[in-house]
Formats: sequence, structure tokens, C-alpha cells
Amino acid sequence: MRWAVLLAGGSGTRFWPLSTPDTPKQLLPLSGSGTSAEESVERLTGLIPRDRTLVVAGARLAPRLQERLKLPAANILIEPRAASTAPALIWATWEAQRRDADAEVLSLHADWAVGDAAAFRRTADMALATARQHDRLVTVGMVPSRPETGYGYIVPGAPLDDTARTVARFSEKPDAATALDLMAAGALWNSGLFAWTARRLLEEVEAHTPEVAHCIPALRVGDVERFFREVTPISIDIGLLERSGAVAVVRGAFAWDDVGTWQALTRVRPKDPKGNVVVGEAFVHESQDCIVWSDRDPIVLHGVQDLVVVQANGRILVMPAERAAGMKHLLDALPPEIRDITP
Amino acid sequence: MRWAVLLAGGSGTRFWPLSTPDTPKQLLPLSGSGTSAEESVERLTGLIPRDRTLVVAGARLAPRLQERLKLPAANILIEPRAASTAPALIWATWEAQRRDADAEVLSLHADWAVGDAAAFRRTADMALATARQHDRLVTVGMVPSRPETGYGYIVPGAPLDDTARTVARFSEKPDAATALDLMAAGALWNSGLFAWTARRLLEEVEAHTPEVAHCIPALRVGDVERFFREVTPISIDIGLLERSGAVAVVRGAFAWDDVGTWQALTRVRPKDPKGNVVVGEAFVHESQDCIVWSDRDPIVLHGVQDLVVVQANGRILVMPAERAAGMKHLLDALPPEIRDITP
Repeated sequence: MRWAVLLAGGSGTRFWPLSTPDTPKQLLPLSGSGTSAEESVERLTGLIPRDRTLVVAGARLAPRLQERLKLPAANILIEPRAASTAPALIWATWEAQRRDADAEVLSLHADWAVGDAAAFRRTADMALATARQHDRLVTVGMVPSRPETGYGYIVPGAPLDDTARTVARFSEKPDAATALDLMAAGALWNSGLFAWTARRLLEEVEAHTPEVAHCIPALRVGDVERFFREVTPISIDIGLLERSGAVAVVRGAFAWDDVGTWQALTRVRPKDPKGNVVVGEAFVHESQDCIVWSDRDPIVLHGVQDLVVVQANGRILVMPAERAAGMKHLLDALPPEIRDITP
Repeated sequence: MRWAVLLAGGSGTRFWPLSTPDTPKQLLPLSGSGTSAEESVERLTGLIPRDRTLVVAGARLAPRLQERLKLPAANILIEPRAASTAPALIWATWEAQRRDADAEVLSLHADWAVGDAAAFRRTADMALATARQHDRLVTVGMVPSRPETGYGYIVPGAPLDDTARTVARFSEKPDAATALDLMAAGALWNSGLFAWTARRLLEEVEAHTPEVAHCIPALRVGDVERFFREVTPISIDIGLLERSGAVAVVRGAFAWDDVGTWQALTRVRPKDPKGNVVVGEAFVHESQDCIVWSDRDPIVLHGVQDLVVVQANGRILVMPAERAAGMKHLLDALPPEIRDITP
């Protein structure tokens, strides 16, 4: 049967001061109506039921996620520590197989904005079918809309059928010039939406991912603590997909955004005629291409452009939009009494 | 005897959202320790006593001014309406003369920042002596430190003695090029610090200021309401000083600032090594030449420059420093529910 694995970790830094370790972006209504975590589960309706939806998160978020997502308690998999995506996905896939020997797994992240849920489900259905039919690990590639340097790119190889291709190579976080070349060559963004059968995934891990494979015996005896203590943190892309020859790519036919920075709000929120995105009370005067978020006070912009101005959780942040990708650099410099937001 | 007339009106727009009609800038600690209204009275200590210090203000501010400035109630002159500086100064001078037939008047504004109180008193003393000795209306001119286009300029004429000159001409709010020419020609800023004998002032008003002179009979019968109802609003500069031939100028030998915009804080407040002025809690990261004022939340700047960022009275304002002179333009556009700050 089909299972979903939702990665819902997150340190809550990218949308500081709105996001916090207790309320990272997947628990915020960044793109509009609901939180992306709730929308991620809703979006699977008709494809994968809630009782076969597993969520991987840290202990701090687990209770809130279970409550918000209305999932069985046993479906919240609590990571003893954050160890990147390979250990989390391998553990969750192993767990799906433990409950269902013939499990097929769709892996996704809890913090995406997706434009068209039906198209998303059609793509996910196709990816799962491809994984079964070709016995491969399937990545869903997104057609790039900009030469983003923060993503990984997938260069498709030979056709496997009408919709799936092999992967010629991966290119992780290219510089801007390389990203433009990749776009021109038809490369796709590696979204993190994957499909595989549990059996095939675990075979490939045994063959290619010693950093994790050597700890799987701990899972067999139910010792998740030991698994995470002994595992080497590594991403599924670097630790497995780039090493395996059994990868395929299908093209995602839906608008997708990982809402990775404050600047992403200009893609997932409506803009005024001057390109400003406003959430909360504000007056934007002779200003353009700004992002304004207020959780309390009216914010007045007067004659500025390309700024992010946020009031949230008793903090005010002002930066150029182009700095939005450098939040970690800022947070490393911030004094703890300003940085740390307690509930 | 010597009297001081302190103009303390003000609409509270220039330092929005910190300043309000109930707390205009002369009641704010903009330049540091105390409010400029209090400092203005303190600064006269030893030159003019409080019981001969008159304050002109609207009814809204009068009670607070009397309390803060520790003045006799009879020394607060309540303007029935704001009618620019000529009616206010002529009324207050007339009132000083009513109480003291031989009154000498020093007129000043309640919202200045002055660097050296002793030097201020020496200049004021000299201006009052010059007014008596030469029987002229004396303006104190400040040596310009920048080609300010918001001020009036005084071009000095022939020497009257070692320290005083006649006035060749006035130039009101010149454009930037003219301001540079004026600076090069030795023109001085017209600060609004004046000295005159009440007798001479009222003679010159009768001769040159029909807009106000025709209403003085109302003052003789104690009808201040009628005086203000019938008077034509006009500034003392345009209504009298530019018309009278009996004006002199002495040079002010002290640092002076009218703290007219948010940008003025860079002149009257200490700056960090990158030129930022911070009042309240803030963290200024990789940013320069900014002005930050917070009355509640920590403000974090990240990679910006030349910005004014203010949180005050439940409003947040972000604008380039160069827009600070355009507050009226902004406030005219602001929706009342954001603009109007109630105590």
C-alpha cells in the first residue's frame, strides 16, 4: 500500500522573528489560509489516507504536529536528533515496511506551497507508479522558474517511458552562471518529492549508504535512539540518490515553492500593483517590491524599495530582500536576548 | 527689564509616530536628557528669571507646559488659534510691555537643541544689549554648517559696532544652489532667536505690519480672542523683519539645531562608528547611517543604510533618511486610523 512520509523538522530560523524553534515555518500560515503542514496532509486526500501518513519531527514539535494534523499518535516519528534527510527517510521507510511489507513510500516536506493540489496528486501518483514499474527511486523534478542557487538540480537522462527518464547527473547548489546553464539544458529542480518502494529503497541503502546502513540493525531491535546516535548525518541526495544507478526523474506539473525565505512570499502571496506583499496592517506609500508582515502594529513604509519589514513576536526586522537568504548569518550575530523568542 | 518669550506651538507631525499633537517635539527628549522645552527655560537661568518667562502655546499643550516648565499660570499665553509667529510674538511682546513698560524681549523657540548654554546666554545678552543700544530689532544669525534649504538666510550688511551689523537682505528657503552661494557669501541662518525692546517692536509693527497692527486695539481692551480672530496669520520674518529698516544681526556663537526632522538626530545624538544613531533597544548589523528609535520592541537592522526606522506609540515607520523632511506629505496620505495617535 501507499504511505506518505512527511519531513517536518526545522530550526525556525529562516522566517525569524516570525518563525521560532517552537513554531517553524511549516506551522505558520505563510502562504495564506492554513499552515503548510496542514495543507501538506490535506493535499494527499484521496491519494494516501491519514492512517498511512507518517510525520518525522523532533520531540519539541511532535505534540503540536499530531494535534494540528489529526494523525494517530503512532504516526508521529520523533527523531532523537536532527541528522539530515537520509536517516529520517530511511527510518520512516523502514517503519512503513515494518507495518506493511509491500509499502510504497511518497516522501515530501511539510513546508511547501503547492499551486494545484489535483495536479500534485497526479504527479505523485505517476511517481509512485514509476517507482513500482521500473523498480527505481523516483525523484520529481520541477521546471525552474529562476536560476536559484539554493537548490539542487537534476539533469534528466534517457527516457524510461513516456513520463520518466533516468538521471544523467545531479548538480547541488550551483553558482548563478551554472544555474542558468542548467536551466538552458533542461535541468529540473530537485524538490525533495520522492517515491520508492520500501524494499528497493532499503536495498539501495545497503548498497550505497554505509553511513546509515550499518545502523539499521538497531531499528530491527526497536532501538531508534541508538540508530540516531550511531548514524552519520547526511542528505538523501548526497548519501543515496547521487550514488545509486537506480534513480528516475518525472516532471512535476504543478506550481511548487519551498517558501525558503522571506522573499518567497512574493511568489506565494498576492502583490499590490507596485509589487508589495503586505500581511497584517500596513500603509505602503511610494514604495515598491517590499514585503511587510505585522502581527501587531501598523507598519508605514515611505519611499523605500526591495525591503523586508517584519514585526513578529515582539521583534522588528528590517533588511533588503536580497539579504533574506542570509538569516543564519544574522542570527549567529544576534545577541541571545534579542534572538531567542520564548512562547 | 528683560523678558523671554518662548514659542511652544507645534502640530506634532515632524517626528511622527513619536510626536503627536499632545506631545510635539518640544515635549520629547529627542536630543537626550530632558525635553527641549524644559532645556529652553533652564538655559535662560541667570539671564532671565522664570517669572519673566512667557510661553505661547495652544490650549491643548498649555497645562502640560505649565507643569513641566514650573512657570506661573499667568505666564502661559494661550493662543486661541495658531496664526504663525507674528501675531504670537507681537501679542507676547505687548503683554510683556503691559506688565513692564520698559520691557526688553528675547524671543526663542521651545524646540531647539543648543550645544553650549553659557555661550547661548552670552549671545542672548549681546543681542538684548544691541537692541537697546541701537534701537533695532535684533536677529541672531547662525553660521551655516550645511546648505539647508528649509531655513531662512540673513545676509549681513554694514557694521553697527564690533558685533552687530545691519541686514542687507533676507533669503527664505533658498534652493540648494542658492543656499551654497549664500553660505559662500557669509550669510547666516535666521534661527528665530530675536531681541527687541517692546516699545521699538510695537512701533515697527505699527509702521510695517498692518496685518497685525489693526488688531492691537483688541489687546488694549483685553480681547485676545478678537485679536486672533481678526489677525492675518503671517510670520514675523515676512510680516515685519523683511519690511523694517531697523533690523540688526549678531552672530550666534553656539551650536544650534532646530531638530526639525528625524534626520536631525544624527546631529544632536551620539553615533556609533558606522554612523548609526540608536535610541532604545536595537541591533544594527552590517548597516550604516541609520536612525533607529524604539519605544518597545528590539529593532534589528540587517544590511541596510540611510534608513529611519521608528517604533513609537504603536506604529512602525520605515523611510530613507532623505524622506524625513517630507513627513507632512506622508501624513496627508496616511489613513486617519493609522495616523491619529490617541493618548
